[in-house]
Amino acid sequence: MKLPELKYDRAGIVPVAVQDADTGQLLMLAYMNQEALRATLKSGFATYWSRSRQELWTKGETSGHRQKVVEIRADCDGDALLLRVRQEGGACHEGYRTCFFRRLENGELKVVEEKVFSPEEVYGE
Amino acid sequence: MKLPELKYDRAGIVPVAVQDADTGQLLMLAYMNQEALRATLKSGFATYWSRSRQELWTKGETSGHRQKVVEIRADCDGDALLLRVRQEGGACHEGYRTCFFRRLENGELKVVEEKVFSPEEVYGE
Repeated sequence: MKLPELKYDRAGIVPVAVQDADTGQLLMLAYMNQEALRATLKSGFATYWSRSRQELWTKGETSGHRQKVVEIRADCDGDALLLRVRQEGGACHEGYRTCFFRRLENGELKVVEEKVFSPEEVYGE
Repeated sequence: MKLPELKYDRAGIVPVAVQDADTGQLLMLAYMNQEALRATLKSGFATYWSRSRQELWTKGETSGHRQKVVEIRADCDGDALLLRVRQEGGACHEGYRTCFFRRLENGELKVVEEKVFSPEEVYGE
């Protein structure tokens, strides 16, 4: 499978902004290496590279909250990607639709979104 | 000025997804260190950390295409920011409204946006 020329960093990854294709809501920021991009293109569902676990992870493989890819874009420098997706359930492991559920107010991060699922029910205790 | 607790990487920076506050369009992906975040909060206009030049840059200082900050959010892990902004002109130095003006199609990056300004006129030859 042909992949586009991107400027991966020293660790071989690029940041990926993930956006709800219907509402424009920014859902999360993740990372991809070439292998993750290839897996995403092959399946049509978002697969990322986990920097902490140093392994591929297909979004939703535990929760069922998959991301069907509608469109992939690259930025001018080719060192960042945008994924526009159809998100099942919520993107955030804490139960929110978006990982960006906290707003900066007077130096504090304040929760400004409602949970859309129970992490305990989805991931177990 | 009080800053939120964020998980900066080893270089002391976090990625920042920058979104048009009105349309939801993703405009660019940049980086901030603590100093950039402080400058942004102080002025109300987006200032980033340039990894290539290793210096602060206030978006629009050359082009006039500033970004007035409407809202700043942090993600669940505190290692990424979302800036929702009012963008003057275009975000991309290549003349487009968004830096994400290329769509991935069959392994190629294809331009799918129209330019909104002339880089030559704005930045000089």
